[in-house]
Amino acid sequence: MRGRASRMLVLLAAFVGALGPISSRAEEPLPSWNDGEARQSILRFVESVTREGSPTFVPPAERIAVFDNDGTLWAEQPLYVQLVYALDEVKALAPKHPEWKTQQPFRDLLEGNTRSALSAGEVGLAKLLAVSHAGMTTDAYAASVAEWLRTARHPRFKRPYTALTYVPMRELLDHLRANGFKTFIVSGGGVEFMRVFAERLYGIPPEQVIGSNGGLELKQGPDGKPVLMKTAKIDLIDDHAGKPVGIQRFIGRRPILAFGNSDGDKEMLEWTAAGDGPRFMGLVHHTDAEREYAYDRSSHVGKLDKAWDQAVARKWTVVDMKKDWKRVFADQ
Amino acid sequence: MRGRASRMLVLLAAFVGALGPISSRAEEPLPSWNDGEARQSILRFVESVTREGSPTFVPPAERIAVFDNDGTLWAEQPLYVQLVYALDEVKALAPKHPEWKTQQPFRDLLEGNTRSALSAGEVGLAKLLAVSHAGMTTDAYAASVAEWLRTARHPRFKRPYTALTYVPMRELLDHLRANGFKTFIVSGGGVEFMRVFAERLYGIPPEQVIGSNGGLELKQGPDGKPVLMKTAKIDLIDDHAGKPVGIQRFIGRRPILAFGNSDGDKEMLEWTAAGDGPRFMGLVHHTDAEREYAYDRSSHVGKLDKAWDQAVARKWTVVDMKKDWKRVFADQ
Repeated sequence: MRGRASRMLVLLAAFVGALGPISSRAEEPLPSWNDGEARQSILRFVESVTREGSPTFVPPAERIAVFDNDGTLWAEQPLYVQLVYALDEVKALAPKHPEWKTQQPFRDLLEGNTRSALSAGEVGLAKLLAVSHAGMTTDAYAASVAEWLRTARHPRFKRPYTALTYVPMRELLDHLRANGFKTFIVSGGGVEFMRVFAERLYGIPPEQVIGSNGGLELKQGPDGKPVLMKTAKIDLIDDHAGKPVGIQRFIGRRPILAFGNSDGDKEMLEWTAAGDGPRFMGLVHHTDAEREYAYDRSSHVGKLDKAWDQAVARKWTVVDMKKDWKRVFADQ
Repeated sequence: MRGRASRMLVLLAAFVGALGPISSRAEEPLPSWNDGEARQSILRFVESVTREGSPTFVPPAERIAVFDNDGTLWAEQPLYVQLVYALDEVKALAPKHPEWKTQQPFRDLLEGNTRSALSAGEVGLAKLLAVSHAGMTTDAYAASVAEWLRTARHPRFKRPYTALTYVPMRELLDHLRANGFKTFIVSGGGVEFMRVFAERLYGIPPEQVIGSNGGLELKQGPDGKPVLMKTAKIDLIDDHAGKPVGIQRFIGRRPILAFGNSDGDKEMLEWTAAGDGPRFMGLVHHTDAEREYAYDRSSHVGKLDKAWDQAVARKWTVVDMKKDWKRVFADQ
């Protein structure tokens, strides 16, 4: 009896031992975050809205989480990735458009003067892309973006842009989904651009990607089948006040969690904060010149000024990249 | 040995007997459909895209199913429900808008001449609603729709409009979701109107409702909090060619199943049909004057003419309401 019981205990221990560390290790949330106030505030919030019977419990259907993309989920320095793509595309398309030599912002871009093209921020970028891709089908555009992402390299890190997503933020997306949240991107970037990589990089399907929108027109393709052509029209600039508009138009309910990194996210954070019940508002503060970049109030790309003041005044969570993240990119 | 084996067989039979009927009864798909070609074509299609290893297998993420609403999921006769709401609202708001007495389509509606207001179809309806509700917040609009739905009654059936959804189509939505499909509404109706009831009636959450879109503007409310106001601008008429545009803009991938009932759904069905791999295109044909309505080529509301010709020519599934459905509404 004793022999058999102890043999069973040994077997049981071996079984638990084999499973235990693996499963508890796998379920340890946010492993790339240092255990400071930022990580704790996230864990506390998720726990508070998912604990059944808690006064702050939120039903799964209402656990809507929205994330900016550029500078929040992946690197946006020294230029928005989509702007680098636009620059390359304008150069490639320039021979077919001799008029661009005298038209702005094309002239600036073709002469290598990206600073002035930048001055209009994501609004200018959206306009540029809308014009430079008018007349392409949505399928051709997606194929062009995919091919560019495969070959383009970041000027400083010498890696594909798709390798420059933030591991701690991807862990946060996973942690939220594991707790019944539905995760969305709400970004000033073009929706057709982001959908090419959002599912693969972030686990966010096309229908949960909200971004700036160009016009679309239904036409008949050469084989008689319908195609959708991109037009020069702009339907939505999903930045600043456009973010709550995009959220209402595409999601139709208010998020309970929002994460951004720049003044373009301020209205989205305020819109999220203005709802009833528990709320989480977060900002990524780029403080890590060594592993990534350090910039805020005076940056042309991803300026963080008024949203930062709001975050401090209203006690939103500000993530200090240097202090709060054990690593930034996957291969660091 | 024999005794033990037969006792086990009896136990097993009892066990299977106890489970069998319950689970097979509960899982019997589409119980309100007569077992004709329409039901069989649906079951065959779902089986073909969900059977692992089949050459026609479709991964769950790509199982996108889109449904028109008016006339496909609920009754649209004698008038689109949203038009009845608009009529009631215009009457209620008329004292604040003396100018409507001389402006169309308000004058027609206020004089009870709904036929001429109808002549512009869902396009005219969207314009009417956009104008009549400009300056309302999205929250106030949703509350107004909810209150109206609570009190309004269908002129013939003397029941709330929300009682006039088609049970067989709700079963189809359930069957698709049980097989890993993601179900969307893609309707000419206003998105803010449909979101009020889509989750409760169809199990379709707000973020999966695509419809005609009015403009939205971010403003500061009286308490200093941000609000979204509806403007008179129209962003998308989600009907005819607008349906593939809405699908691309909001979902970003092509459906593999589409269901409609009128010419406004033709482009959505063609867009769905033009994709690679297995496809299902379906039309509800209103043939049942007794239990619901009988109408097609010459109807002002929900005209089915060119889409029907296409369906016949391309062997899409045409559901004959009278023949294919055991019941139409829940209390029949």
